[in-house]
Amino acid sequence: MSHPHPELGPPPALPKGGVRVVPLGGLGEVGRNMTVVEYAGRLLIVDCGVLFPEDHPGVDLILPDFEYIEDRLDDIDAIVLTHGHEDHIGAVPYLLRLKPDIPLVGSTLTLALVEAKLKEHRITPFTLTVKEGSREKLGPFDCEFVAVNHSIPDALAVFLRTPGGNLLITGDFKMDQLPLDGRITDLRSFARFGEEGVDLFLTDSTNAEVPGFTTPERDITPAIERVFATAERRIIVACFSSHVHRVQQVLDAAQAHGRKVAMVGRSMVRNMGIAADLGYLHVPDGLLVDAKKLGDLRDDQVVLVCTGSQGEPMAALSRMANRDHQIDVGPGDTVLMASSLIPGNENAVYRVINGLMRLGARVVHKGNALVHVSGHASAGELLYCYNIVRPRNVMPIHGEWRHLVANADLAILTGVPARNVIVAEDGVVVDLVDGRASITGVVPCGYVYVDGSLVGTTDETLLKDRRILRDEGFVTIIVVRDSNTGKIAAGPDIRTRGFAEDEAVFDKVRPRIEEALEDARRKGVEDTHQLQQIIRRAVGGYIGGKLRRRPMIIPIVIDA
Amino acid sequence: MSHPHPELGPPPALPKGGVRVVPLGGLGEVGRNMTVVEYAGRLLIVDCGVLFPEDHPGVDLILPDFEYIEDRLDDIDAIVLTHGHEDHIGAVPYLLRLKPDIPLVGSTLTLALVEAKLKEHRITPFTLTVKEGSREKLGPFDCEFVAVNHSIPDALAVFLRTPGGNLLITGDFKMDQLPLDGRITDLRSFARFGEEGVDLFLTDSTNAEVPGFTTPERDITPAIERVFATAERRIIVACFSSHVHRVQQVLDAAQAHGRKVAMVGRSMVRNMGIAADLGYLHVPDGLLVDAKKLGDLRDDQVVLVCTGSQGEPMAALSRMANRDHQIDVGPGDTVLMASSLIPGNENAVYRVINGLMRLGARVVHKGNALVHVSGHASAGELLYCYNIVRPRNVMPIHGEWRHLVANADLAILTGVPARNVIVAEDGVVVDLVDGRASITGVVPCGYVYVDGSLVGTTDETLLKDRRILRDEGFVTIIVVRDSNTGKIAAGPDIRTRGFAEDEAVFDKVRPRIEEALEDARRKGVEDTHQLQQIIRRAVGGYIGGKLRRRPMIIPIVIDA
Repeated sequence: MSHPHPELGPPPALPKGGVRVVPLGGLGEVGRNMTVVEYAGRLLIVDCGVLFPEDHPGVDLILPDFEYIEDRLDDIDAIVLTHGHEDHIGAVPYLLRLKPDIPLVGSTLTLALVEAKLKEHRITPFTLTVKEGSREKLGPFDCEFVAVNHSIPDALAVFLRTPGGNLLITGDFKMDQLPLDGRITDLRSFARFGEEGVDLFLTDSTNAEVPGFTTPERDITPAIERVFATAERRIIVACFSSHVHRVQQVLDAAQAHGRKVAMVGRSMVRNMGIAADLGYLHVPDGLLVDAKKLGDLRDDQVVLVCTGSQGEPMAALSRMANRDHQIDVGPGDTVLMASSLIPGNENAVYRVINGLMRLGARVVHKGNALVHVSGHASAGELLYCYNIVRPRNVMPIHGEWRHLVANADLAILTGVPARNVIVAEDGVVVDLVDGRASITGVVPCGYVYVDGSLVGTTDETLLKDRRILRDEGFVTIIVVRDSNTGKIAAGPDIRTRGFAEDEAVFDKVRPRIEEALEDARRKGVEDTHQLQQIIRRAVGGYIGGKLRRRPMIIPIVIDA
Repeated sequence: MSHPHPELGPPPALPKGGVRVVPLGGLGEVGRNMTVVEYAGRLLIVDCGVLFPEDHPGVDLILPDFEYIEDRLDDIDAIVLTHGHEDHIGAVPYLLRLKPDIPLVGSTLTLALVEAKLKEHRITPFTLTVKEGSREKLGPFDCEFVAVNHSIPDALAVFLRTPGGNLLITGDFKMDQLPLDGRITDLRSFARFGEEGVDLFLTDSTNAEVPGFTTPERDITPAIERVFATAERRIIVACFSSHVHRVQQVLDAAQAHGRKVAMVGRSMVRNMGIAADLGYLHVPDGLLVDAKKLGDLRDDQVVLVCTGSQGEPMAALSRMANRDHQIDVGPGDTVLMASSLIPGNENAVYRVINGLMRLGARVVHKGNALVHVSGHASAGELLYCYNIVRPRNVMPIHGEWRHLVANADLAILTGVPARNVIVAEDGVVVDLVDGRASITGVVPCGYVYVDGSLVGTTDETLLKDRRILRDEGFVTIIVVRDSNTGKIAAGPDIRTRGFAEDEAVFDKVRPRIEEALEDARRKGVEDTHQLQQIIRRAVGGYIGGKLRRRPMIIPIVIDA
């Protein structure tokens, strides 16, 4: 198994006839999936998603780093989107801002979702709709699209034929053998590609650590049925706003139990509207009602389907838990949180659950019922894939390092030689030359932060400042200097915010500052910056040494 | 099931002969467990632990709120400590600061651990050592101590006999029927107390949501054995520094496989030293080596037992993952993370796992092997307890609201009338009068923050400031006013830190400030505070309206 080496530099020129694969996101993290494939000077991009921040204060989204392709935008033949999840399409608007006419290629639902998103950014894209079985020549890339099963309808894998070798990219997928919509991952095509020859197989690693097989979506039906059979008053279902099949199950149960359904939350209303319009969500006539008209119905005739399953503070469910929503949750209500719990969101989700239960609601969630199954192939399914495809080289994609390594181990177990299994992270260049894939270099690939309306200007220094401010607050020391005499005209004026100690602690430090400044004046130090450093030292020594604190210290000398 | 009501006020005087129970921590949260029991004007405290902060920037620990007992310190007959975990003993030093001579009552190991902690606080406590079977009269409280099984040795439940009724308090416990040390939860005594009559049963709710039975500790032996049988080089085990039985399993395996063991990390060294000295940890002669002398051994002769299983950034394991530790982890090393994953720590823990795997180590953890079992009774065990004890009234303790409610539901399932099952949170007063428990009021019970050396001064306002600073940074606007003319002598000098936008955005706002101040001067506004408000409005309107940001805005007017 090949590990990237820290000593790697920029890659050499790609040998003629070679295929270059450069992941710009999604390898070494869960999110912002984006892979660039190059052949004969032309580029094909597969997916362009966002990553949600963890410990990045004030950051809204993290984008792939476009630096590697910024000077080569004209070389891009298309952006292929495997499915409509945010971590695969969320960064498309930011890439199209650089060049709005790069064609987007994807399935009907995927393109509808990305177009809705682009509309908010006032971008009208060029699109090419494909479906399973479609074959399209995009520049030198001969692309065949294949149905895969995932937690959103209409997901596609893509088989890239190039004169330099064939790549099979799964996108996100699992292999539910009895999916609700009957659309299975097309292993027959995987087998056909295997016969033809898969030189590099890029496979979803998200669940590679999970032994066995992912539970079928239909196995959550009994838990949903139980909720409908026992709920006394309202049923409030929270799930991902893209999980059409999950919502379908809820709609079917509502219909069977004579309840009406209202969608709540902007993204839920929008996405389910799109899914219904395009025929992915089947809504019986008269089932849906406007959330504003729920007052006309008895509580036991109502189902709400809403956002907020991850404890997002502004989403409908969190606001209900905080009694800050027109839906007034109370005893007899049943809340069904039919979604995964994304690592890092635990505290927020449990806060919501506790809040709802305190109001008297019953809460059915992943922790106490089978109300969620994953959208990704577990180890057992990945083994099937490797055995059916028999690839020459493997490159795990989509996951943290631990997921990529677990996936690599599976490939090796099925007989792929370890030297042909490439564990690479974002920015690591993998070249497929003469049927052999190997790491040849690295390209710049940092985090690009979306911070309000700013993209790419927030950097690690700013985040470090925010972390210091968060933990320790700040102290400003303002001194006004008489520009004629050079003496202190006012101050030191000391203010703190977020700082744990009382401002009175500075009574002891004030004379030190004055002394240090007077000393500096006598020595002829006039430069404001130097004086500020002198103040910083006088205050910092006291705060760090005596109080054992590390706030941000901001000395300001002003001439008046 | 009784819910606390927000309209509750201070409780009435406790009727003569009644017993009052006031939880000051641990009910509605996981941590800072502390319960005050009152009879005939005397108080007994059971446990006094800390809570670890979640979204409390800069806070080190959260303590129970002592306000309710601060004026009644002389009424306290003893502090009974059920076991030596931080969430049950961690706040003892802070309580003893108020009155150092309150006796501490607990088992040998529990008292040894709390004494080591108190030594760091330079407090020598009065102690009374008890063990299973001990019976002690502490004021009017006739206390009998009972063995319970938990994830630390020497844990005790306590049966409190008072003329006003009998209380059985489990502390934290589970019911491993084949524990490594043979010390089982003493259900025979539970049965005996049941025969005598348990008027109020206070039971550990932590795992009440978990169906079935907690897996026995010995069931992790195969996973540990497998690590020892297959490890090529070093074995590095991370676990809680109080988990004596877990460490015992590692020592036994090391002995069997001819490896030496070094303890790493201050709390691990200290606690295992105490446990070994007192005979709770059995260390074969010559097995332990000093971590500094590992260089004398081959890598495949070494086991390290260290802290850091929760991804704590300063602990040994995190530093190894960051290559910031003298132990230089590499290929062939195996890391065994033999602990739970406390909610909220997921990202930190996965960061450590990914870091170690990137260095080439194999990591065995809860996600891929059975290397941890819980220390708390699951629903099945709690049902046994209720059926054996047959209590008159039940009050779930130790847990978030969802855990308390799940535990209450179990009590009701076994036949305890719902009206006798009291779900109360911190500060809610439960009175046991004439055999009937009920909620009678609330007492003050806030979060008390330890922030560096300060206790109780950090408040919600300060935390709110830190959250604003974290997300948006701050903007200071300094204006120096000539105290003779009232005109601006210098400034506006605008500085920002943690603020996303470039300082150049203020070019547009500077003239507005000058205009607003000049306008104020003409109108005769002289008050500095008022002028600062004028600046805030001028800047705030621009930043909030135009930039859509909400940083902390700090206008400062200085006279010179």
